[in-house]
Amino acid sequence: MPIWKQWLYPDNVNTSASGAGAAAEILSEETVDALARAQAAAAESVPHPHEALLSARAANIKQSAVRDVFEISMTPGLVSLAGGNPYLQSLPLERLAATAAKIISEHGLEALQYGGGQGTQELREQICAVMAAEGITDADPENVVITAGSQSAQDVAAKVFCDPGDVILLEDPTYVGALNTFEAYEVDVQPVAGDEHGLIPDALRAKIASLQAAGKRIKLLYTIPNFNNPSGVMLAPERRQEIVDICRAANILVLEDNPYGLLKFDGELPAPLRAANPEDVLYLGSFSKIFAPGLRIGWALVPAHLKQRYYLASEAVTLCPPTFNQLLVSDYLRNYDWMGQIATYRSLYQERCAALLAALEEFMPEGVSWTTPEGGFFVWLTLPEGIDTYPLLYKGIDAGVVFVPGAAFSAAEGPSNKLRLAFSAVPPESLREGVRRLAPVLAEALLTK
Amino acid sequence: MPIWKQWLYPDNVNTSASGAGAAAEILSEETVDALARAQAAAAESVPHPHEALLSARAANIKQSAVRDVFEISMTPGLVSLAGGNPYLQSLPLERLAATAAKIISEHGLEALQYGGGQGTQELREQICAVMAAEGITDADPENVVITAGSQSAQDVAAKVFCDPGDVILLEDPTYVGALNTFEAYEVDVQPVAGDEHGLIPDALRAKIASLQAAGKRIKLLYTIPNFNNPSGVMLAPERRQEIVDICRAANILVLEDNPYGLLKFDGELPAPLRAANPEDVLYLGSFSKIFAPGLRIGWALVPAHLKQRYYLASEAVTLCPPTFNQLLVSDYLRNYDWMGQIATYRSLYQERCAALLAALEEFMPEGVSWTTPEGGFFVWLTLPEGIDTYPLLYKGIDAGVVFVPGAAFSAAEGPSNKLRLAFSAVPPESLREGVRRLAPVLAEALLTK
Repeated sequence: MPIWKQWLYPDNVNTSASGAGAAAEILSEETVDALARAQAAAAESVPHPHEALLSARAANIKQSAVRDVFEISMTPGLVSLAGGNPYLQSLPLERLAATAAKIISEHGLEALQYGGGQGTQELREQICAVMAAEGITDADPENVVITAGSQSAQDVAAKVFCDPGDVILLEDPTYVGALNTFEAYEVDVQPVAGDEHGLIPDALRAKIASLQAAGKRIKLLYTIPNFNNPSGVMLAPERRQEIVDICRAANILVLEDNPYGLLKFDGELPAPLRAANPEDVLYLGSFSKIFAPGLRIGWALVPAHLKQRYYLASEAVTLCPPTFNQLLVSDYLRNYDWMGQIATYRSLYQERCAALLAALEEFMPEGVSWTTPEGGFFVWLTLPEGIDTYPLLYKGIDAGVVFVPGAAFSAAEGPSNKLRLAFSAVPPESLREGVRRLAPVLAEALLTK
Repeated sequence: MPIWKQWLYPDNVNTSASGAGAAAEILSEETVDALARAQAAAAESVPHPHEALLSARAANIKQSAVRDVFEISMTPGLVSLAGGNPYLQSLPLERLAATAAKIISEHGLEALQYGGGQGTQELREQICAVMAAEGITDADPENVVITAGSQSAQDVAAKVFCDPGDVILLEDPTYVGALNTFEAYEVDVQPVAGDEHGLIPDALRAKIASLQAAGKRIKLLYTIPNFNNPSGVMLAPERRQEIVDICRAANILVLEDNPYGLLKFDGELPAPLRAANPEDVLYLGSFSKIFAPGLRIGWALVPAHLKQRYYLASEAVTLCPPTFNQLLVSDYLRNYDWMGQIATYRSLYQERCAALLAALEEFMPEGVSWTTPEGGFFVWLTLPEGIDTYPLLYKGIDAGVVFVPGAAFSAAEGPSNKLRLAFSAVPPESLREGVRRLAPVLAEALLTK
């Protein structure tokens, strides 16, 4: 296991899990210089004739180049507050191993063969039960499309609804993977203002009005109402129906992404936007946060009148979701105490979140504020205006801690005074140590501002 | 297991493998009538306001509506020559079960976690060894991008290279899934004439010239040079370099799809187009035909100067390929006699192909001709001009046999006098029985023409 993976995934030192997602934006200043030199050299050379073959959208697919220089930019011994990985150590791995064997032994000819493009009937029915736990009680398996992870479901949504220049409204900040996916379709992503209770209905109204006045076609509102990645914010229950009503009135489909919905630390789950609005919300769910992201099984619950379009587009991308993986998830939902596992996760993440918040209280300098999540994986820090958290990344690495700078999560160009800390994969004592290391870095930035 | 699955998958009667791919275009005349009535009714009703939200490309995503009315269109007792599924019964399932258990037991924290967007280093290195067996000896794991099946690799290629209206040249007939994928990007798919030795270089030259004269931008040549699906034809070795040279001169990238390359019945494998042309060919490979399609693991070997664009686009679609599935394939390539398994498949499919060809000789009426494949899964039948094989499908079902009509595999609209027979999943005696039932249906069509 390369050394950078050990500190990015401190709990997984015996695995070689590599860093998908959040950890991708990290590089040393030497690497930045090397990249700049390489780009300058490239700019002077003659372009390959194949450059003329690239689609217009290819230019919009972000060069998150950092992922590729990941290894050389790393130094050992860091505490990682960067990666938003679930804490899989709490799964019953030995039992799952036996289940995987049983599936191949008893159903190998199905598990290893092509399957239907919409996913298996059994898993679609079980997903309806999962959604019932999430607060959606009227889902029909006929309208569930199983996808290769929820990311793929976002891709299909953009494919079905967005021509170049069409607008998707979204939270600022929002999930970096969704931004990348939408921008690959040349979508005009437009942030809507929010506060500690999520999207602000009046801000949504105003944004729609100004975009419509400018002649823009608004297709979707993409929202993570429960424990937004990266902000950790939950959309207030009393705002939810109003948000849907505003969108319905403007003929905007709501794309609700709810991977963390069941990971509310305690108290009642707020009803998803989809719950009372089956025609107006295309709902995305995932097993990545409540079971296992390495299986890449997500789903879309599609309004009945749009399901056929969505399903055919999904099939044109991946033919069918992996059959073995669907059977494993089905067995897990059929034979395991999956709700009990979620309860375990809830208290585990609650404890870690509390440890992170306590450490922030203990160590952070005056002038730094943060969100107080009621669920999910993330806390979002705000520094005073004018401080760019991106260069602080290198100073954090020097101090032995790594985080994700805020700019990654924003549709806007330019610097950000925010940063994301993930508590999901890190034990409480390491969370405290990471914050202890981070505090002087931020304090220095505050002083020299 | 529904009865229609039993006859579509006669060897899999104890599984519920459902019918991805070829078997999707089948419906009874009653169903056609019902669909027509439903469409007429829909046309009279007020469209949902969300219709205005659909992208232009959504209209191009084919209504292979038949898949959805699959079950009601079926009757029991048929011999299926429709589905192009590999014969998984020949895999060592008990041993694979133990391997799956070991992976989760010993590497569960990696197997069930997020992984890197390009795929694991180990599997990318092993894929280079597979490609060496296919005739590509200079592949660098850095330029391999692992995808959620080869279908997803086709989707990413279209995403990176094709704006609406751009041309992809392809064989006629060609893989129905690629047609669907390309048309979802509003690509102008243009067939190039071929014969029993594959694409005709002069026809390719003429097609390029006429399209360029018409002001078209040609981006890709999509080709299945080895045992084309559906025709079974192999591109003659002596035409291969000429095809690449023509494309290079016209600045057209070759997209070479080679899922059946190792399944040549005997004799030497012809070198892939990619072998001597690392800059000019984007090569697609798959474990679906040589191992297990239910794992959905394919790959792209991308020219070095295009790799970064391709990789980022792939990551924007699926984040990362499923980790568990990659580890299982890696273990299979590391610890099993995978080349021995391919040798087993070769002789198995050779025997089945021979049985199908012998039955065609025995039963087919004068006027029907067919290809003689040297590998792969399919035989392609040609009836006299003017006979449409689509309506013959219902007559075939009445006679107890099912096939795929040729129209599905053509970019051209309108009827086809061709049809595809798959021998891969059917034992020799059932192949003979299927052809025995099919012959009088075709004979009647010839008589009444």
